[in-house]
Amino acid sequence: MTYCLAVKVNKGVVFASDSRTNAGVDYVATYSKMTRFTWPGERVLVLLTSGSLATSQAVVNALHRDLDDPEAKFDLRSGKQLHEVADYIGMLSQAEQQRREKAMEKSGNSAESSFILGGQIAGKAHEIFMIYPQGNFVSTSSDTPYLQIGENKYGKPILDRIITATTTLEDAARCALVSLDSTIRSNISVGPPVELAIMTTNTMEEPYHQSMTMNSPMYKSIQKQWTDGLKRSFNRLPRFEWEKK
Amino acid sequence: MTYCLAVKVNKGVVFASDSRTNAGVDYVATYSKMTRFTWPGERVLVLLTSGSLATSQAVVNALHRDLDDPEAKFDLRSGKQLHEVADYIGMLSQAEQQRREKAMEKSGNSAESSFILGGQIAGKAHEIFMIYPQGNFVSTSSDTPYLQIGENKYGKPILDRIITATTTLEDAARCALVSLDSTIRSNISVGPPVELAIMTTNTMEEPYHQSMTMNSPMYKSIQKQWTDGLKRSFNRLPRFEWEKK
Repeated sequence: MTYCLAVKVNKGVVFASDSRTNAGVDYVATYSKMTRFTWPGERVLVLLTSGSLATSQAVVNALHRDLDDPEAKFDLRSGKQLHEVADYIGMLSQAEQQRREKAMEKSGNSAESSFILGGQIAGKAHEIFMIYPQGNFVSTSSDTPYLQIGENKYGKPILDRIITATTTLEDAARCALVSLDSTIRSNISVGPPVELAIMTTNTMEEPYHQSMTMNSPMYKSIQKQWTDGLKRSFNRLPRFEWEKK
Repeated sequence: MTYCLAVKVNKGVVFASDSRTNAGVDYVATYSKMTRFTWPGERVLVLLTSGSLATSQAVVNALHRDLDDPEAKFDLRSGKQLHEVADYIGMLSQAEQQRREKAMEKSGNSAESSFILGGQIAGKAHEIFMIYPQGNFVSTSSDTPYLQIGENKYGKPILDRIITATTTLEDAARCALVSLDSTIRSNISVGPPVELAIMTTNTMEEPYHQSMTMNSPMYKSIQKQWTDGLKRSFNRLPRFEWEKK
């Protein structure tokens, strides 16, 4: 499994992803699920992937193939709106899945993949989209400023409590790391390294990026201070009547 | 959906359950999912239910039927070990599901139910069991002192961070309420009132029981103080390098 999320705040977008993949429970491996494409001053894109690793890789390969092919009808630099890019990725994903459909049906496995695409095209607003395995996609609303793919439940409560449109990029990044850490602790199918990217709106340059192991100072210190803070908050919760005597 | 959990600590067992049931998204209702049976000095049992409401109710009806029938081969007062009672409940659940099997298959619906049974038989240790729809069941281990049924993911991280065998009953109860509240906030298929039962080991009397709405003082105050505490802890998380300048 996987857990990836993108948080869109007024100041920009935070992307975070785990790196664990597995085929069954007895073949576990580590792969980055975050791909960044930057054309400084022109467009900044970040893609997060979950689901079938074969489909995800095939889509990323197709993105590079089209960028290298001057005859390609569409590529990541085409499209004046980010939703056109999301639609293009959805089509690549569907094309790959349809190619494998018969073989997958026979095997009883799924070639489905989900994606989060976020970024900014110069002169336009920054946006994020979740692209379903069927190729269609949704964006955020002001009430729901984040999108998740994969094991999204463990890490949702903290997002619901903290994130609003006016959250700073740094707070959104810390919240994304806490959300990922909670998921990693409760579900072994989600694991480190954790990748973090922070895109500041209108800078139109390579987003800040860091890949953190469990031993990276920032990750370790967030993990420790969050655990300590939770315990402190927990110990301050109200007492039952009979404890007050 | 549903979210119920039982936490077994050295001092006893805490049970907590939500009360929302739904048939599709357009028929939502409120039902208690906690049934308590106490024979003071003899045995204390608490049953939590999730899944098909029809199956859950049929099982609870069958429990009462057997208690009222002097000819019944087994009832809740039979069995010297709690796992025999768990096995009996699993059999009742399977019998009900098998009765409905053909009709359910035709409709494409599921008659599956899961249960948590906990309590104590005089002279024996207190225990909790999760009974699968198939009738088999598992208990806890010293490493995993809690069991959950229904929407279990949202509320798992806080349990993993707080609960150990030496946690007090009151802390276990507060943790169960926080776990339920996090789930209620993030998933509309889980809703109030929230029922809480606390069984202190070896007292062999009616467990403490409270049903709380969102406006109950204890629930409201836990909810507020937890939200405030989380925000305080969140605001104390370490800064990124560039924020320190």
